[in-house]
Amino acid sequence: MTSSTASIIAVDAMGGDHAPGVVVDGVVDAVRELDARVALVGPEAIIHAELQRHRADSDERISLVAASQVIEMAEHPAQAVRQKTDSSIVVGMREVKEGRAAAFVSAGNTGAMLAAGLFQLGRIRGVERPALATVFPTRSGFTLIVDVGANADCKSEYLAQFALMGAAYAEQVLDVANPRIGLLSIGEEEEKGSQLVQRAHALLREQSTGFVGNVEGKDIPAGAVDVVVCDGFVGNVLIKFAEGVASTIGGIIREEVTSSPLSKLFALALRPAFRRAYGRLDYAEFGGAPLLGVQGVVIIAHGRSNARAIRSAIRVARRAVEGGLVERIAAAVEVGGQRSEVRGQG
Amino acid sequence: MTSSTASIIAVDAMGGDHAPGVVVDGVVDAVRELDARVALVGPEAIIHAELQRHRADSDERISLVAASQVIEMAEHPAQAVRQKTDSSIVVGMREVKEGRAAAFVSAGNTGAMLAAGLFQLGRIRGVERPALATVFPTRSGFTLIVDVGANADCKSEYLAQFALMGAAYAEQVLDVANPRIGLLSIGEEEEKGSQLVQRAHALLREQSTGFVGNVEGKDIPAGAVDVVVCDGFVGNVLIKFAEGVASTIGGIIREEVTSSPLSKLFALALRPAFRRAYGRLDYAEFGGAPLLGVQGVVIIAHGRSNARAIRSAIRVARRAVEGGLVERIAAAVEVGGQRSEVRGQG
Repeated sequence: MTSSTASIIAVDAMGGDHAPGVVVDGVVDAVRELDARVALVGPEAIIHAELQRHRADSDERISLVAASQVIEMAEHPAQAVRQKTDSSIVVGMREVKEGRAAAFVSAGNTGAMLAAGLFQLGRIRGVERPALATVFPTRSGFTLIVDVGANADCKSEYLAQFALMGAAYAEQVLDVANPRIGLLSIGEEEEKGSQLVQRAHALLREQSTGFVGNVEGKDIPAGAVDVVVCDGFVGNVLIKFAEGVASTIGGIIREEVTSSPLSKLFALALRPAFRRAYGRLDYAEFGGAPLLGVQGVVIIAHGRSNARAIRSAIRVARRAVEGGLVERIAAAVEVGGQRSEVRGQG
Repeated sequence: MTSSTASIIAVDAMGGDHAPGVVVDGVVDAVRELDARVALVGPEAIIHAELQRHRADSDERISLVAASQVIEMAEHPAQAVRQKTDSSIVVGMREVKEGRAAAFVSAGNTGAMLAAGLFQLGRIRGVERPALATVFPTRSGFTLIVDVGANADCKSEYLAQFALMGAAYAEQVLDVANPRIGLLSIGEEEEKGSQLVQRAHALLREQSTGFVGNVEGKDIPAGAVDVVVCDGFVGNVLIKFAEGVASTIGGIIREEVTSSPLSKLFALALRPAFRRAYGRLDYAEFGGAPLLGVQGVVIIAHGRSNARAIRSAIRVARRAVEGGLVERIAAAVEVGGQRSEVRGQG
């Protein structure tokens, strides 16, 4: 692998609610502003037309990888990945698998990205279950939640590894020195929570140097820790719930402040402030959800991604590649396992 | 039991962050405005002084039940309930157990209320695990979530009963005709979710006439169903998370709209609208969390309860008593079990 190949980010041109338009917008931004090298995956004619719109069709930093099929958002993930072997998701993942790209970014069907990532790339040696992580906005910045949907049923050992992988990602990609790790539970005391979580608590104590103990639901938006560990069922329920809560609160505030002509006027005057508040809560700044533990860098962007979100995901993917995320996760999982063995013998 | 005894609501004078002051405020309101009959439980001298403040010390609708100890918010629940046998929580629960009161309301230590409710009152015949339910505000009204913390580890059978008990409560106390029941999962399809949830899905289909299928996190604040069923770990994480998200969003909006003198002025003008929005999201209107499945009516109010929240909890407790909640739950659980048997034989 030459160094130039190593830094190519494959991007699914057909993934997301606003593909291919905003995806190509985001790619062109990333190439021009961040000097990224991108391989756009999808139907060549369509991509070509989109690139022409930006007069970017002859930019040498953008290449094309042909894929004739598209996995739709509502398709059954595993089945679609098996059947649509020339879909942009399967083809893009193959670019990573075969070393022509260092990372794959898609805003497409999350389940299909998970399935393709697991089946095609395989696990990093020592990793029991890859996990999907996402960055969640907090009062003071953000926190990384692992797992948010790759594993609906977990063993305690998986949770302990999620902590190690999440810490590696937070440190290397999100620039958090010595990340504080919290285990999501329903009380701060060690003996609180489900049996799964109680056993995971003991393993985290052994394996994770940054483990600070249990955290509760309210501690996540408060930004109490840098990495929150939970099973994929709870994590997935939480992030979808948060979207719902935010939009409900936003909707109720909007209804009330626009309920009279006068207050509508005041609300208009406050629009810049509301915009800033919204910006601080906006997922688009944070660059998508990494699939941690597979043999390659995989970033799943939100289905509603705009161009800025796509650009962020590309930036994040490049950081993960350049910092050697896969090797770091392999090392973290190995060291964690050794710590448990030492304690087990001690 | 005379009909007058039957309608007495025991209220823990010492429960909650602002006890005994706001508790007695709420009790006096409930007695004067709703004509409730209340037995205040706690140290007699303290309660007497609080009642005098309202010139309510000779109101015949308010009686006193002496309890010399208080279980603090931070105490270990089960241990405190065992040791402090003259605490307001243990004494109040005994009033229900021994038929001198029909319901017990407390804004005190939730874990202690759960432990005392389970140990002292026992389960309704046929109920596998009592569950804590809470009313959650949505865009259009509210939804009842069961379980929010009584059972960290659940079997599918428990979840199926949570649905039956939640539906009985929604129908009888919250005035929801034919409540729609949703099972919290990470996808709408039947085969999505953890093994626990997949098995519960099948049981709910058999047992609950109002079951509409799986719901996701985002469907809760959207108000997609009237009753959301989940295990107590997920439910507890969710409601604490929601509090955190709401306060983080509120805090960020406040910071941004008060960041300049001018926008501070506009924000001041909009204060009534913000107040109305807050009111629609306010837990105080909804009257606390019922412990469903025990032999008596038990309502756990929020620790931060104000007088209005205490009054709401008393109102809700009285409705539950007058409508025969315990008998309705017993009947619902029996019918649900029969439906499963019939299907099992068919």
